[in-house]
Amino acid sequence: MEGQVPGAMGSSGSLALRFGQTCFSCASLLFMCLDVEFYSYTTFCFLVTVMGLVIPWSLVLVLADAYSVFVKSLDLQRRNLLMIIIGDLVLSFLSLAAACSTASVADLLLDVGKSFCPEKLCSRYQLSAAMAFLSWFLSFSSSLFNLWLLPAL
Amino acid sequence: MEGQVPGAMGSSGSLALRFGQTCFSCASLLFMCLDVEFYSYTTFCFLVTVMGLVIPWSLVLVLADAYSVFVKSLDLQRRNLLMIIIGDLVLSFLSLAAACSTASVADLLLDVGKSFCPEKLCSRYQLSAAMAFLSWFLSFSSSLFNLWLLPAL
Repeated sequence: MEGQVPGAMGSSGSLALRFGQTCFSCASLLFMCLDVEFYSYTTFCFLVTVMGLVIPWSLVLVLADAYSVFVKSLDLQRRNLLMIIIGDLVLSFLSLAAACSTASVADLLLDVGKSFCPEKLCSRYQLSAAMAFLSWFLSFSSSLFNLWLLPAL
Repeated sequence: MEGQVPGAMGSSGSLALRFGQTCFSCASLLFMCLDVEFYSYTTFCFLVTVMGLVIPWSLVLVLADAYSVFVKSLDLQRRNLLMIIIGDLVLSFLSLAAACSTASVADLLLDVGKSFCPEKLCSRYQLSAAMAFLSWFLSFSSSLFNLWLLPAL
Protein backbone atom coordinates (compact mmCIF):
# COMPACT_ATOMS: atom_id res chain seq x y z
CA MET A 1 0.00 0.00 0.00
CA GLU A 2 2.93 2.35 0.62
CA GLY A 3 4.29 1.92 -2.90
CA GLN A 4 1.25 3.36 -4.64
CA VAL A 5 1.80 7.10 -4.23
CA PRO A 6 5.37 8.44 -4.33
CA GLY A 7 5.80 10.98 -1.56
CA ALA A 8 2.95 9.69 0.60
CA MET A 9 3.51 8.80 4.24
CA GLY A 10 5.90 5.89 4.72
CA SER A 11 7.68 6.06 1.36
CA SER A 12 11.22 7.20 0.77
CA GLY A 13 9.94 10.27 -1.12
CA SER A 14 8.11 11.31 2.01
CA LEU A 15 11.29 10.81 4.04
CA ALA A 16 13.12 13.18 1.70
CA LEU A 17 10.32 15.77 1.92
CA ARG A 18 10.21 15.64 5.73
CA PHE A 19 13.97 15.85 5.94
CA GLY A 20 13.91 18.94 3.73
CA GLN A 21 11.22 20.51 5.91
CA THR A 22 13.26 19.94 9.04
CA CYS A 23 16.41 21.41 7.49
CA PHE A 24 14.72 24.48 6.05
CA SER A 25 12.71 25.28 9.17
CA CYS A 26 15.81 24.91 11.37
CA ALA A 27 17.73 27.16 8.99
CA SER A 28 14.95 29.74 9.08
CA LEU A 29 14.88 29.71 12.88
CA LEU A 30 18.66 30.01 13.15
CA PHE A 31 18.91 32.86 10.63
CA MET A 32 16.25 34.72 12.61
CA CYS A 33 17.36 33.97 16.16
CA LEU A 34 21.12 33.65 16.26
CA ASP A 35 22.66 36.84 17.60
CA VAL A 36 19.69 38.96 16.50
CA GLU A 37 17.23 40.86 18.63
CA PHE A 38 13.98 39.81 17.05
CA TYR A 39 11.73 40.63 20.02
CA SER A 40 11.04 44.18 18.92
CA TYR A 41 8.99 43.17 15.88
CA THR A 42 5.75 41.18 16.23
CA THR A 43 6.22 39.55 12.85
CA PHE A 44 9.60 38.07 13.68
CA CYS A 45 8.24 36.65 16.93
CA PHE A 46 5.45 35.07 14.91
CA LEU A 47 7.99 33.44 12.57
CA VAL A 48 9.95 32.08 15.52
CA THR A 49 6.77 30.69 17.12
CA VAL A 50 5.65 29.00 13.92
CA MET A 51 9.08 27.49 13.30
CA GLY A 52 9.04 26.25 16.89
CA LEU A 53 5.88 24.33 15.98
CA VAL A 54 7.04 23.11 12.57
CA ILE A 55 10.39 21.70 13.71
CA PRO A 56 9.11 19.14 16.27
CA TRP A 57 6.26 18.11 13.93
CA SER A 58 8.68 17.43 11.06
CA LEU A 59 11.16 15.70 13.35
CA VAL A 60 8.54 13.24 14.59
CA LEU A 61 7.42 12.50 11.04
CA VAL A 62 11.03 12.11 9.85
CA LEU A 63 11.50 9.47 12.53
CA ALA A 64 8.26 7.70 11.59
CA ASP A 65 9.21 7.70 7.91
CA ALA A 66 12.74 6.51 8.60
CA TYR A 67 11.34 3.66 10.69
CA SER A 68 8.91 2.80 7.92
CA VAL A 69 11.58 2.85 5.18
CA PHE A 70 14.50 1.19 6.94
CA VAL A 71 12.98 -1.09 9.59
CA LYS A 72 9.41 -2.17 9.06
CA SER A 73 6.71 -0.59 6.94
CA LEU A 74 4.03 1.05 9.10
CA ASP A 75 0.41 0.04 8.93
CA LEU A 76 -1.29 3.40 8.35
CA GLN A 77 -4.84 3.86 9.49
CA ARG A 78 -7.24 6.24 7.83
CA ARG A 79 -7.74 8.25 11.03
CA ASN A 80 -4.02 8.77 11.60
CA LEU A 81 -3.44 9.78 7.99
CA LEU A 82 -6.28 12.31 8.24
CA MET A 83 -4.70 13.80 11.36
CA ILE A 84 -1.34 14.07 9.58
CA ILE A 85 -2.95 15.75 6.57
CA ILE A 86 -4.78 18.30 8.70
CA GLY A 87 -1.67 19.03 10.76
CA ASP A 88 0.39 19.50 7.62
CA LEU A 89 -2.19 21.82 6.08
CA VAL A 90 -2.45 23.99 9.19
CA LEU A 91 1.32 24.20 9.64
CA SER A 92 1.86 24.94 5.96
CA PHE A 93 -0.61 27.83 6.14
CA LEU A 94 1.06 29.15 9.27
CA SER A 95 4.51 28.97 7.72
CA LEU A 96 3.31 30.65 4.52
CA ALA A 97 1.83 33.44 6.62
CA ALA A 98 5.03 33.81 8.64
CA ALA A 99 7.21 33.78 5.53
CA CYS A 100 5.14 36.44 3.77
CA SER A 101 5.01 38.68 6.81
CA THR A 102 8.74 38.41 7.40
CA ALA A 103 9.55 39.08 3.76
CA SER A 104 7.33 42.15 3.60
CA VAL A 105 8.58 43.57 6.89
CA ALA A 106 12.22 43.04 5.86
CA ASP A 107 11.48 44.79 2.57
CA LEU A 108 9.78 47.69 4.35
CA LEU A 109 12.67 48.03 6.83
CA LEU A 110 15.10 48.20 3.92
CA ASP A 111 12.97 50.92 2.32
CA VAL A 112 12.30 53.00 5.39
CA GLY A 113 15.89 53.49 6.36
CA LYS A 114 19.14 52.09 7.50
CA SER A 115 18.54 53.23 11.06
CA PHE A 116 16.07 50.42 11.70
CA CYS A 117 18.08 47.69 10.11
CA PRO A 118 21.75 47.55 9.08
CA GLU A 119 22.20 45.91 5.69
CA LYS A 120 23.71 42.71 7.04
CA LEU A 121 20.79 42.17 9.42
CA CYS A 122 18.17 42.77 6.74
CA SER A 123 19.69 40.21 4.42
CA ARG A 124 19.49 37.70 7.26
CA TYR A 125 15.80 38.45 7.69
CA GLN A 126 15.33 37.91 3.97
CA LEU A 127 17.22 34.61 4.06
CA SER A 128 15.08 33.48 6.97
CA ALA A 129 11.92 34.32 5.01
CA ALA A 130 13.22 32.41 1.98
CA MET A 131 13.88 29.32 4.11
CA ALA A 132 10.38 29.58 5.57
CA PHE A 133 8.96 29.70 2.02
CA LEU A 134 10.85 26.52 1.10
CA SER A 135 9.60 24.83 4.26
CA TRP A 136 6.03 25.86 3.37
CA PHE A 137 6.38 24.43 -0.13
CA LEU A 138 7.65 21.05 1.08
CA SER A 139 5.06 20.76 3.81
CA PHE A 140 2.22 21.65 1.44
CA SER A 141 3.40 19.14 -1.12
CA SER A 142 3.57 16.32 1.40
CA SER A 143 0.08 17.25 2.55
CA LEU A 144 -1.12 16.97 -1.07
CA PHE A 145 0.60 13.60 -1.57
CA ASN A 146 -1.05 12.26 1.56
CA LEU A 147 -4.42 13.60 0.46
CA TRP A 148 -3.94 11.63 -2.76
CA LEU A 149 -3.35 8.46 -0.74
CA LEU A 150 -6.44 8.97 1.46
CA PRO A 151 -9.15 7.53 -0.85
CA ALA A 152 -7.07 4.35 -1.32
CA LEU A 153 -7.18 3.53 2.41
CA MET B 1 -24.59 14.70 -9.01
CA GLU B 2 -24.53 18.34 -7.87
CA GLY B 3 -26.57 17.59 -4.77
CA GLN B 4 -24.03 15.23 -3.23
CA VAL B 5 -21.55 17.69 -1.75
CA PRO B 6 -22.89 20.91 -0.21
CA GLY B 7 -20.66 23.78 -1.30
CA ALA B 8 -19.30 22.07 -4.40
CA MET B 9 -19.50 23.75 -7.80
CA GLY B 10 -23.04 24.25 -9.01
CA SER B 11 -24.82 24.07 -5.64
CA SER B 12 -26.41 26.96 -3.80
CA GLY B 13 -23.77 26.67 -1.05
CA SER B 14 -21.11 27.32 -3.66
CA LEU B 15 -23.08 30.33 -4.90
CA ALA B 16 -23.04 31.76 -1.36
CA LEU B 17 -19.29 31.11 -0.99
CA ARG B 18 -18.47 32.74 -4.32
CA PHE B 19 -20.70 35.70 -3.54
CA GLY B 20 -18.87 36.16 -0.23
CA GLN B 21 -15.51 35.98 -1.97
CA THR B 22 -16.55 38.66 -4.45
CA CYS B 23 -17.85 40.96 -1.71
CA PHE B 24 -14.85 40.60 0.57
CA SER B 25 -12.25 40.97 -2.17
CA CYS B 26 -14.02 44.08 -3.52
CA ALA B 27 -14.16 45.50 0.01
CA SER B 28 -10.46 44.80 0.51
CA LEU B 29 -9.58 46.50 -2.77
CA LEU B 30 -11.73 49.53 -1.98
CA PHE B 31 -10.38 49.96 1.54
CA MET B 32 -6.87 49.89 0.11
CA CYS B 33 -7.31 52.00 -3.01
CA LEU B 34 -9.96 54.62 -2.39
CA ASP B 35 -8.31 57.98 -1.69
CA VAL B 36 -5.11 56.36 -0.46
CA GLU B 37 -1.64 56.49 -1.97
CA PHE B 38 -0.66 52.87 -1.82
CA TYR B 39 2.05 53.03 -4.48
CA SER B 40 4.84 53.76 -2.02
CA TYR B 41 4.72 50.34 -0.38
CA THR B 42 5.46 47.17 -2.34
CA THR B 43 3.19 45.10 -0.12
CA PHE B 44 0.11 47.20 -0.75
CA CYS B 45 0.71 47.05 -4.50
CA PHE B 46 0.89 43.26 -4.15
CA LEU B 47 -2.47 43.21 -2.35
CA VAL B 48 -4.06 45.34 -5.04
CA THR B 49 -2.66 43.08 -7.78
CA VAL B 50 -3.90 39.92 -6.09
CA MET B 51 -7.36 41.37 -5.51
CA GLY B 52 -7.42 42.43 -9.16
CA LEU B 53 -6.99 38.74 -10.00
CA VAL B 54 -9.40 37.37 -7.39
CA ILE B 55 -12.33 39.65 -8.26
CA PRO B 56 -12.79 38.64 -11.93
CA TRP B 57 -12.25 34.95 -11.06
CA SER B 58 -14.96 35.02 -8.38
CA LEU B 59 -17.29 37.05 -10.57
CA VAL B 60 -17.11 34.49 -13.39
CA LEU B 61 -17.75 31.64 -10.95
CA VAL B 62 -20.63 33.52 -9.30
CA LEU B 63 -22.24 33.81 -12.72
CA ALA B 64 -21.67 30.12 -13.49
CA ASP B 65 -23.11 29.09 -10.13
CA ALA B 66 -26.10 31.39 -10.46
CA TYR B 67 -26.82 29.94 -13.90
CA SER B 68 -26.51 26.44 -12.49
CA VAL B 69 -28.78 27.14 -9.51
CA PHE B 70 -31.49 29.25 -11.11
CA VAL B 71 -31.60 28.26 -14.79
CA LYS B 72 -30.20 24.84 -15.66
CA SER B 73 -27.77 22.68 -13.73
CA LEU B 74 -24.38 22.57 -15.42
CA ASP B 75 -22.82 19.33 -16.58
CA LEU B 76 -19.40 19.50 -14.92
CA GLN B 77 -16.52 17.68 -16.52
CA ARG B 78 -13.61 16.34 -14.53
CA ARG B 79 -11.11 18.48 -16.44
CA ASN B 80 -12.98 21.72 -15.83
CA LEU B 81 -13.42 20.95 -12.13
CA LEU B 82 -9.70 20.26 -11.82
CA MET B 83 -8.93 23.62 -13.43
CA ILE B 84 -11.29 25.36 -11.02
CA ILE B 85 -9.71 23.61 -8.01
CA ILE B 86 -6.17 24.54 -9.07
CA GLY B 87 -7.18 28.14 -9.78
CA ASP B 88 -8.88 28.41 -6.39
CA LEU B 89 -5.87 26.96 -4.58
CA VAL B 90 -3.42 29.31 -6.28
CA LEU B 91 -5.60 32.36 -5.70
CA SER B 92 -6.24 31.41 -2.08
CA PHE B 93 -2.50 31.12 -1.45
CA LEU B 94 -1.90 34.46 -3.12
CA SER B 95 -4.61 36.16 -1.08
CA LEU B 96 -3.34 34.62 2.16
CA ALA B 97 0.13 35.91 1.33
CA ALA B 98 -1.19 39.37 0.51
CA ALA B 99 -3.32 39.51 3.66
CA CYS B 100 -0.46 38.49 5.93
CA SER B 101 1.94 40.93 4.35
CA THR B 102 -0.53 43.79 4.57
CA ALA B 103 -1.37 43.02 8.18
CA SER B 104 2.25 42.85 9.26
CA VAL B 105 3.22 46.01 7.39
CA ALA B 106 0.27 47.92 8.85
CA ASP B 107 1.25 46.72 12.30
CA LEU B 108 4.86 47.77 11.77
CA LEU B 109 3.83 51.19 10.47
CA LEU B 110 1.71 51.70 13.59
CA ASP B 111 4.71 50.76 15.74
CA VAL B 112 7.36 52.75 13.94
CA GLY B 113 5.62 56.06 14.14
CA LYS B 114 2.74 58.25 13.25
CA SER B 115 4.78 60.06 10.63
CA PHE B 116 4.50 57.15 8.20
CA CYS B 117 0.84 56.49 8.73
CA PRO B 118 -1.87 58.60 10.39
CA GLU B 119 -4.12 56.52 12.61
CA LYS B 120 -7.12 56.67 10.31
CA LEU B 121 -5.09 55.39 7.37
CA CYS B 122 -3.56 52.54 9.35
CA SER B 123 -6.94 51.26 10.47
CA ARG B 124 -8.00 51.21 6.83
CA TYR B 125 -4.97 49.09 5.95
CA GLN B 126 -5.90 46.73 8.77
CA LEU B 127 -9.52 46.51 7.59
CA SER B 128 -8.29 45.75 4.10
CA ALA B 129 -6.09 42.94 5.44
CA ALA B 130 -9.01 41.53 7.42
CA MET B 131 -11.20 41.47 4.31
CA ALA B 132 -8.42 39.73 2.38
CA PHE B 133 -8.23 37.08 5.13
CA LEU B 134 -11.97 36.44 4.86
CA SER B 135 -11.70 36.19 1.10
CA TRP B 136 -8.84 33.67 1.53
CA PHE B 137 -10.90 31.58 3.91
CA LEU B 138 -13.90 31.38 1.60
CA SER B 139 -11.83 30.65 -1.47
CA PHE B 140 -9.89 27.91 0.31
CA SER B 141 -13.07 26.30 1.60
CA SER B 142 -14.67 26.22 -1.84
CA SER B 143 -11.48 24.67 -3.17
CA LEU B 144 -11.72 21.94 -0.50
CA PHE B 145 -15.41 21.29 -1.26
CA ASN B 146 -14.61 20.90 -4.95
CA LEU B 147 -11.72 18.59 -4.15
CA TRP B 148 -14.20 16.45 -2.21
CA LEU B 149 -16.43 16.26 -5.29
CA LEU B 150 -13.58 15.31 -7.64
CA PRO B 151 -13.40 11.52 -6.96
CA ALA B 152 -17.16 11.23 -7.55
CA LEU B 153 -16.86 12.51 -11.14
